[in-house]
Amino acid sequence: MRKLIVTIGVLEACHREKIRAAAEKRGFEVSFFENEQESLPHLTDAEVVFGQGAVLAKNSPNLRWLCTPSAGVNQFLGEHVFASPEAVLTNSSGAYGVTIAEHVVMLILEVLRRQQDYTEIVSRREWIRNLPVRSIRDSRITLLGTGDIGQEVAIRLRAFGPACMTGVNRSGRNPGERFDCVVRQDALDSVLPETEILIISLPGTADTFHMLDARRLAMLPEHALVVNVGRGTVVDQKALEQELRAGRLCAALDVFEEEPLPPEDSLWTCPNLLMAPHVAGNMTLPYTKNRIVDLFLEDFERYCDGKPLERKVDLKKGY
Amino acid sequence: MRKLIVTIGVLEACHREKIRAAAEKRGFEVSFFENEQESLPHLTDAEVVFGQGAVLAKNSPNLRWLCTPSAGVNQFLGEHVFASPEAVLTNSSGAYGVTIAEHVVMLILEVLRRQQDYTEIVSRREWIRNLPVRSIRDSRITLLGTGDIGQEVAIRLRAFGPACMTGVNRSGRNPGERFDCVVRQDALDSVLPETEILIISLPGTADTFHMLDARRLAMLPEHALVVNVGRGTVVDQKALEQELRAGRLCAALDVFEEEPLPPEDSLWTCPNLLMAPHVAGNMTLPYTKNRIVDLFLEDFERYCDGKPLERKVDLKKGY
Repeated sequence: MRKLIVTIGVLEACHREKIRAAAEKRGFEVSFFENEQESLPHLTDAEVVFGQGAVLAKNSPNLRWLCTPSAGVNQFLGEHVFASPEAVLTNSSGAYGVTIAEHVVMLILEVLRRQQDYTEIVSRREWIRNLPVRSIRDSRITLLGTGDIGQEVAIRLRAFGPACMTGVNRSGRNPGERFDCVVRQDALDSVLPETEILIISLPGTADTFHMLDARRLAMLPEHALVVNVGRGTVVDQKALEQELRAGRLCAALDVFEEEPLPPEDSLWTCPNLLMAPHVAGNMTLPYTKNRIVDLFLEDFERYCDGKPLERKVDLKKGY
Repeated sequence: MRKLIVTIGVLEACHREKIRAAAEKRGFEVSFFENEQESLPHLTDAEVVFGQGAVLAKNSPNLRWLCTPSAGVNQFLGEHVFASPEAVLTNSSGAYGVTIAEHVVMLILEVLRRQQDYTEIVSRREWIRNLPVRSIRDSRITLLGTGDIGQEVAIRLRAFGPACMTGVNRSGRNPGERFDCVVRQDALDSVLPETEILIISLPGTADTFHMLDARRLAMLPEHALVVNVGRGTVVDQKALEQELRAGRLCAALDVFEEEPLPPEDSLWTCPNLLMAPHVAGNMTLPYTKNRIVDLFLEDFERYCDGKPLERKVDLKKGY
């Protein structure tokens, strides 16, 4: 019997039932494991794996398809990751836009409205209420990355009345007309000086490495806000830290060049920075879990019908 | 010469110029003061005052019109507040919707996404990222108060894809079709059991006093979120604190029954509560200051033309 292995601990009973029903209809036997380690002895004859971690790829010699519940695929890049030469990889890009977009709006508002300072004030039981604040309204916003995340962010920010929302991507095309205009990545330099809020949702690839370096960060106007919910390697972290410590820029970072951020890193105490331990797109939101399962099952139907998979990753490009 | 006194310290040069130009065109002499105290010696023959504080009303015997830059007018209610029997009061309702709506969205997301817990985690330099979170998406939202604030909140929350947004007001009318449906205040009890997020933007009047009392708070489902950015007296604060300490509800409060909240109040250490010192609608946002001045000048033109003032307050009703 064909074998499907699922190693996503956060799935709930309803998700397992849905996957089981779809698998059995297509002649698959499905086994669920809480984590990668538990699944290892069962991977030898696995045809399809739905789970996270390169260890799954390395230990499945007969694998045809691996679907990761993440959007990022960095751990699957490079040589010898897949034991099976025939394996294809898909990701769950499209499942995280809603939750990450909510996170981005929250981070922007927290920075603009001085919420860190007010938290301090409340912790001292003080009644100080006259800190200067800023608004999304009439702000000039640039979204570096116009995929699922960038679009869901744009949908929400539109309702706040920004002055303009400019998308930046490889093609210069405006997906879904979500943006006021879209420019190609090679025109990024022309957009930065006009950007008051920069939202980065790019994957971590060789092409995006340090796209925001010291030179480009210096092009942002004074007090611009940099939000990164893509991958930490897109921003030169040391260069950004200098700008933050100089008080010239402010930032909200959910991702870092090295994760976990080492406990001794100076970023932990950097001023003008709001940070979180890579939680914007975690899998704890029920809506996100539903989407991950639904996207997998869409591609599962295609797989069983011998059709091309919708969310197939180009391992050379890295997304 | 007719006299206009302006006592709003946060105004900037551009605002003063705008007011001066409008006043001179209509034959008014205008004087600007940083605060009420400074203006006191100049109020005797003031015809129009644009400022905050009942002391202005009490010390202007020849006053015809007082415009407060606030939306709330509690300090002007009651007997003997106005020295001049002919004085009318207008407020700046309509200037605060944008800034308060941004605050409300931020508070909701901070509570649903466990931002207080993540702030703690980051302060300990820990890398914990699996806290269960919730989403505005698919949530059932009730807006108690459908004026400027309620409508601006609804415009923004709509973009997050809630399951439904129900307005509650006195008339049952749906202003601007911003809400999926609107019910009258006397039907509030029927809405509460279905409400996952309750947003209160009501003024503090005799009619709204403790509208959310222990009985009504108990009608909200487990883990419902109560957001109050109207006036603190609308909610029975002690009853809410009991629900928060029991872990049955969570809340985000910008306003309190007594302000400043006394340093010894037990609310400062209440769990499941996000609080701020009445800052949602402060005057520090440039957009808000522009609106306050523009709204005043609109009514100033009407005043000079002998037309009814747009934002006139009914001192008996209290709004």
